[in-house]
Amino acid sequence: MFNITFIFEEGEPVTISALAGEKLLDVARKANVAIDAPCSGNGVCGKCRVRLVSGYLDAPINRHISTEEYNAGWRLACLAQICGDAEIAVPDIANAYRSRMKIADLSSPEEAAIFDRLRCQLMEAGFSMESDLSFLPLELSEPTLDDTMPDNERVLRAVEAATGVPADAIMLPYTVLKHLSWVLRESEFRVKCVLSRDQDRILIRDVLPADNTDPIMGFALDLGTTSLAGVIVDLQTGKILAKASGGNGQIRYGADVINRIIESDKPGGRKRLQDAVVKDSIIPMLAQMYRTSGINPRRIYRMVIAGNTTMNHLLLGLHADPVRMEPFVPSFFRTDYLYVRDIDLKMNRMAELIVAPNIGSYVGGDITAGALVSMIWNNPEMSLFIDLGTNGELVFGNNEFLMSCACSAGPAFEGGDISCGMRATDGAVEACTIDKETMEPTMTVVGGAAPAGICGSGIIDIIAELFRCGIINGKGKFVREGERILHDQHGMGSYVLAWQKDTGGVKDIVINEVDIDNFIRAKGAIFSATQTMLASLGFDASVIERVYVAGGIGSGINMKNAVTIGMFPDIPLDHFHYIGNSSLTGAYAMLLSSQAREKVFELGRSMTYLELSNEPGYMDAFVAASFLPHTDASLFPSVQLD
Amino acid sequence: MFNITFIFEEGEPVTISALAGEKLLDVARKANVAIDAPCSGNGVCGKCRVRLVSGYLDAPINRHISTEEYNAGWRLACLAQICGDAEIAVPDIANAYRSRMKIADLSSPEEAAIFDRLRCQLMEAGFSMESDLSFLPLELSEPTLDDTMPDNERVLRAVEAATGVPADAIMLPYTVLKHLSWVLRESEFRVKCVLSRDQDRILIRDVLPADNTDPIMGFALDLGTTSLAGVIVDLQTGKILAKASGGNGQIRYGADVINRIIESDKPGGRKRLQDAVVKDSIIPMLAQMYRTSGINPRRIYRMVIAGNTTMNHLLLGLHADPVRMEPFVPSFFRTDYLYVRDIDLKMNRMAELIVAPNIGSYVGGDITAGALVSMIWNNPEMSLFIDLGTNGELVFGNNEFLMSCACSAGPAFEGGDISCGMRATDGAVEACTIDKETMEPTMTVVGGAAPAGICGSGIIDIIAELFRCGIINGKGKFVREGERILHDQHGMGSYVLAWQKDTGGVKDIVINEVDIDNFIRAKGAIFSATQTMLASLGFDASVIERVYVAGGIGSGINMKNAVTIGMFPDIPLDHFHYIGNSSLTGAYAMLLSSQAREKVFELGRSMTYLELSNEPGYMDAFVAASFLPHTDASLFPSVQLD
Repeated sequence: MFNITFIFEEGEPVTISALAGEKLLDVARKANVAIDAPCSGNGVCGKCRVRLVSGYLDAPINRHISTEEYNAGWRLACLAQICGDAEIAVPDIANAYRSRMKIADLSSPEEAAIFDRLRCQLMEAGFSMESDLSFLPLELSEPTLDDTMPDNERVLRAVEAATGVPADAIMLPYTVLKHLSWVLRESEFRVKCVLSRDQDRILIRDVLPADNTDPIMGFALDLGTTSLAGVIVDLQTGKILAKASGGNGQIRYGADVINRIIESDKPGGRKRLQDAVVKDSIIPMLAQMYRTSGINPRRIYRMVIAGNTTMNHLLLGLHADPVRMEPFVPSFFRTDYLYVRDIDLKMNRMAELIVAPNIGSYVGGDITAGALVSMIWNNPEMSLFIDLGTNGELVFGNNEFLMSCACSAGPAFEGGDISCGMRATDGAVEACTIDKETMEPTMTVVGGAAPAGICGSGIIDIIAELFRCGIINGKGKFVREGERILHDQHGMGSYVLAWQKDTGGVKDIVINEVDIDNFIRAKGAIFSATQTMLASLGFDASVIERVYVAGGIGSGINMKNAVTIGMFPDIPLDHFHYIGNSSLTGAYAMLLSSQAREKVFELGRSMTYLELSNEPGYMDAFVAASFLPHTDASLFPSVQLD
Repeated sequence: MFNITFIFEEGEPVTISALAGEKLLDVARKANVAIDAPCSGNGVCGKCRVRLVSGYLDAPINRHISTEEYNAGWRLACLAQICGDAEIAVPDIANAYRSRMKIADLSSPEEAAIFDRLRCQLMEAGFSMESDLSFLPLELSEPTLDDTMPDNERVLRAVEAATGVPADAIMLPYTVLKHLSWVLRESEFRVKCVLSRDQDRILIRDVLPADNTDPIMGFALDLGTTSLAGVIVDLQTGKILAKASGGNGQIRYGADVINRIIESDKPGGRKRLQDAVVKDSIIPMLAQMYRTSGINPRRIYRMVIAGNTTMNHLLLGLHADPVRMEPFVPSFFRTDYLYVRDIDLKMNRMAELIVAPNIGSYVGGDITAGALVSMIWNNPEMSLFIDLGTNGELVFGNNEFLMSCACSAGPAFEGGDISCGMRATDGAVEACTIDKETMEPTMTVVGGAAPAGICGSGIIDIIAELFRCGIINGKGKFVREGERILHDQHGMGSYVLAWQKDTGGVKDIVINEVDIDNFIRAKGAIFSATQTMLASLGFDASVIERVYVAGGIGSGINMKNAVTIGMFPDIPLDHFHYIGNSSLTGAYAMLLSSQAREKVFELGRSMTYLELSNEPGYMDAFVAASFLPHTDASLFPSVQLD
């Protein structure tokens, strides 16, 4: 056995024993050291870089690691095998290669404000945001030879006396019974119960010593095709206790839902896909939150997931092929009676798993949860809600009707398929302007440090600015020359946003013609979907009074630039509102409030689903939209090149 | 890897791969070859004998194996390690050492009659013996592009249409959802559901292809301190599909409940005791039944356990020390909301676990279930119900009142603590007479083969006959000489029931003074408990109108002899009735009928519990009863020595 020590820029090092031949990435996972590995160990994505500080690692040079970097100790954790004691530095922000999984800074007021604002909006709309879970303190009489009532009856009778609910309508499940005798005696019969009420029944979810200080917690998860984001919440106050994001480990089975379904249909595939998201993605994310925030997972009593239909099926280990194949029938839109333990997550053993409902094969719980957050169901204005994910999803309507559709945008909005792409976390270029004369960029970087990559909002800005400055043409090809414009041996052009020497990183930060082409297809999918859905109702873009934009694209999204590249319709800019990760905030609302939960199920039932692939005009509209801003310039009268 | 082949007297051999160093007993378990190992691998009980037919095994000579036997290939499975390919014969009946676990012959009409009679008795008493589980065949419409209803809704709507129960009162849990898509498509949407109804709600427990022929099954288990017995039942017909018995693997932690509780209170002890009964006893017993009867465990939807309070606690992994320590408070008398998976048994994932209720620290579900079977709650006669287990348990009363108590008898009734003792299965001497002149025995052996050991009813006969013939005195000491009477170097006497040369076994079958002493203490505990309980009500034995004797002692029990040795009160012999293993038959009734189940819970609530250790006269009564038949001969006027 060798000792492997992980060193962080902040916080205590972590040491764990490992066997010769073990993968470093696996060792890190065992030690609860989360390393972002979207391709989960295939050596493909190059994101799990760590630095060998001392000792030994058996690791090859890889195309993601130059000889110079290799000599400086850089290794891919997924390709490195243990062969002796080692000290491993896990890089954090301020390093050009961010590879640690993101734990949000909860002191950030913006972060907290998103959730607070949603709670206020829902309360204004008449929802109770109080949880149905609560503490009940009990002082029990101690047993004597004259009072030998069994432990469970003692508790049931006391809960009956305190609540007025008859004992036979109070459930005390095995998971509570299992430790009851010990808890009662350790606490000298002074305990507090964690109860939930459902109509006229009570479920005792826990019996804890009276002096236990753990809050009653829940976990909300945005389960994206490319990225996950989650919050652990105090269910009584609504306070966010921990927040984390990370990649969906299923990415190694394909970037889009179709490829993943195909993979899941192979022998053992359902288990592989489920493991990739549960074991390789959710569990490390949770472990990191538990570790950094001192959270006891056994006090997490509920989990809400908002994800698209395919993600929901693969998470639950369900047969997803019928979702993909005509007539496109999922196993469920709504399903109840799920428990967190059904997917082998270790929280409280009675913790239920609530899945935001799907409404079609390609419109899922991310949209029903997000539609709640958009509040468009509560307003008379004709509103468009757009969730920019790997599946782009749209809802259009108002307090009288709602229609939804989905399109395949690919991972570009989240920085996927982009050579220097990354999620909208520290080090990401989130905004950019380019001087038309000098072609020099001015950038805004999340967290303020040197740029490490580009997130979705940054890519929009860069493409819009390159286009506005005439550096690229409507097809996204470079048409000007300059110091920052490079061409490789195949003639592919690229624009250097930041030179390696200036960032302290190991590569220049660039955007190339392939990146631009990928992004143009993504924005074209969104625009053509919007256009086609409106057309199906006999409308055009002029009818839109509000646009709510959601997704991991980054809060810095510049709506003017998004219109400039032809991603959003050319309507007044004050109609646009960025509402953050509505899938996550929607899951958060469902976690806290059973009324919000029921509203999401109601939205699911009442939304009309438009299957774009059945709409004859969609493919033509998509092709026409795969241009900057559009092949039909009359649709974008406000877009004037300088 | 080596190939290990198990050979049986009947049926196909079983081959499995094993690693060098693996224990043969563990390999057998992996191969679902059940070998009876009451001490579960300590080399103590010597019951797991197998014979090496060819190949290699690394196994020591042990006190249970003579050199001659060793040379013949005999080994203890628990001490043998794999060191090469091997062929292992697992002995069955007709061998002097029965070591394969007992699978009852279900063609035996006596076997079937016990369960049939109980069903009739309960139906006569007004109980419905129909199960709440039933099949519902459904022909579903296949989805089309115009009908893309999700799979779960399709089933829910069809069940609603067929039953009239609204869809939102119908539960379709995850375990059904998980395979639903596949089942619907494999069966071309012709399925049958397994439903259970609870008031106005329906639980869909399974959706199976319409042509599936598995019955709806349940498992009833008598969970004894020394022995287990179980039946797998067709819940729609009540038919027994498989039956098995075996030792309780916890025996290695002590023969009585007190020692096991003490062991369970040590670090890791709860898990060890739970594993000893679940993994080492119940799972092999089930595996054997599955294998021999072709049963699919996923079609077992309910399990009922009848065991004493301590066994129930240890099975569930509960903290049992408060059961043992003043003021003697168990975790539960009744507990609901248990599932079979809570104790890591793999049956249907929704299979519930029903525990027959305890009524005191030492009177448990074996008695409440047994009391149901005795029917004494349904008759005006003053009746005594005696369950002869390691804990002897008694219920006295009629249709107006019921009182119960328990005493520690030890395992002698089940053949434990007896040098040639065994359970009442094939090869057991179950009855015996001895000629007073020649002192030659005449025996009845279960199954009719050569005697392999002595079960409880046989021991009663032998002791009664030895006493009647003046071969032993009232203290159980040998006072006559003869060919069959041996004395060892310490002067301990024994009586040879069968010579090795006549049985083909490897040892003489004997009963010695230690055996007799152990049995006298067991019978003394029962008699003094009866006496003390009656006295607490101001009665003596003359008030008893009926006695129902239950337990694994053997159906051959001779009541006259049991009175002769002072085990039962000296009342007319026609008052006595042997009702078999009432704990098992009670569990069987609870499995089938929810009314029977509720009756058992009601009996539990209405029975008065007498704590014998609080009764001042009990210890004196016990000492006085530890004699043949009793120190007070006037209590046994009918017992006349020839």
